[in-house]
Amino acid sequence: MVLVNFIYNGQKDWGVVDRDNKKVLSKKYAFSEEVPDAIEDFIKLPNKPEVLQFDRVNDKSILISEIEFLPPVELVSKNIICIGKNYLDHIKELGTFLEPAEEQMEYPVFFTKSLNTLNGPYKTVSLHSGITKEVDYEGELAIVIGKSGRNISVRDVREHILGYTIINDVTARDLQRNHKQWFKGKSLDGFCPCGPWIVTKDEVENPQNLSLITYVNGEVRQESNTSQMIFKIEELVSTISQGFTINAGDIISTGTPSGVGSGMNPPRFLKHGDVVRIEIGEIGFIENTFILT
Amino acid sequence: MVLVNFIYNGQKDWGVVDRDNKKVLSKKYAFSEEVPDAIEDFIKLPNKPEVLQFDRVNDKSILISEIEFLPPVELVSKNIICIGKNYLDHIKELGTFLEPAEEQMEYPVFFTKSLNTLNGPYKTVSLHSGITKEVDYEGELAIVIGKSGRNISVRDVREHILGYTIINDVTARDLQRNHKQWFKGKSLDGFCPCGPWIVTKDEVENPQNLSLITYVNGEVRQESNTSQMIFKIEELVSTISQGFTINAGDIISTGTPSGVGSGMNPPRFLKHGDVVRIEIGEIGFIENTFILT
Repeated sequence: MVLVNFIYNGQKDWGVVDRDNKKVLSKKYAFSEEVPDAIEDFIKLPNKPEVLQFDRVNDKSILISEIEFLPPVELVSKNIICIGKNYLDHIKELGTFLEPAEEQMEYPVFFTKSLNTLNGPYKTVSLHSGITKEVDYEGELAIVIGKSGRNISVRDVREHILGYTIINDVTARDLQRNHKQWFKGKSLDGFCPCGPWIVTKDEVENPQNLSLITYVNGEVRQESNTSQMIFKIEELVSTISQGFTINAGDIISTGTPSGVGSGMNPPRFLKHGDVVRIEIGEIGFIENTFILT
Repeated sequence: MVLVNFIYNGQKDWGVVDRDNKKVLSKKYAFSEEVPDAIEDFIKLPNKPEVLQFDRVNDKSILISEIEFLPPVELVSKNIICIGKNYLDHIKELGTFLEPAEEQMEYPVFFTKSLNTLNGPYKTVSLHSGITKEVDYEGELAIVIGKSGRNISVRDVREHILGYTIINDVTARDLQRNHKQWFKGKSLDGFCPCGPWIVTKDEVENPQNLSLITYVNGEVRQESNTSQMIFKIEELVSTISQGFTINAGDIISTGTPSGVGSGMNPPRFLKHGDVVRIEIGEIGFIENTFILT
């Protein structure tokens, strides 16, 4: 199942996507019984209602091209937790830029983006030019939590995952460096474009074997595979949940591979009009234009 | 005005405190007109209603001793933003423990605690003994934001502040160190005892001249004054708001002075039954017992 959060005819809604036929079915037609208005309440349902066959209700469907995509989960009292330094090649490239690379990562690096960073998968992103001169992209696979929990064992992680989405962990490198802790440089308004939807776990054969490609204006910048993560999904979610309650609707992003602009020589930061596209395997793609505002 | 969030007779409520007479008046009696149920909605009111004279409604008041204190703001979609290394003596003491002390702080260090850390001012705090062996206290003055904004100038900060409260920025030092970024070590469930109330800004003559004392089992551990902050309140709030929307109800904590357990030689971490009391000038005190669970 592919869940999408959108605006159609001026109304907020969410529903199910038929990717083959590029169609969307509103929740009120897609499910066999009534579902909550908010996608995060749906995620909390103990028993998810059945999806009706798309073709039985096909005349109610709308074209994907007619919807305005919103961030896949609209969060209430939730976290966007990110992982730093989870691809070895990225650690090496940042070594020259941010701080000495480490030989070995013993523990994952967790940090947060504030909820005000949430942005649609095809929206513009402000470069905040009065505040930073070094805006950079980071393409990442993100997990959407479907079931709250704490002290989750590696073995039990899968049952807490609803599905997967894509994130651009946009970063102001100068702020990240200057303020030491990364929160400020990671949390400017609009700095988390994400989506375009949630592909539920049952439709992702192996989340640790997805290609990840980031383009800037059509030029390949990041090209890797989620198989290259140092800490795998099960370990990341289990570790963050130790002593810490993760909530249905939380987003946990899994880190970025090499190829960010700050790792290039000389560094190439984003400028007005740059289009960043991130494609992840069978999940889809997001594409955002960065603008001076 | 002193605003308190509490439970009385099994009902959640909030209201106004008469500290001289140790009494609380529920919002339904304290204000001249109807106010919202949630304190964060009250904070958002464009024109705050007038408080009635306490003595005119004194027969409706209840004793402070009869209420159960809750965290002063119950947050919805909000941030707990903390400042690291904002007292020079604390930077020096952590230098031996966490990383080399810096000669000079050019930029404030911002990090977050997750909302699941919120805890009452007189509640117990779990030591999360299966996950950390190094739980430490940090007494801090915290700002409660009353008016949302972005790119706030130093001069305009005061109008965005509702008032002040007290926080214990409880920290698992081993997790803080191991995970590099501090979020994980700062965000175990219950690790942000705070309160006991919000003293509005008009009643705090000079927030940069408040004594701050932390006791562990009655022994003075931290003894300083908010005058010792490296970055003052106006500068902290203005800086975090650059490119970043702060929301009514957000908590911004201002850092801790020296005297934490990890700065002692040898380090003295909290253990079962330890009582940590933090007193800040005219704001009041919070007092929490740490327990093995």
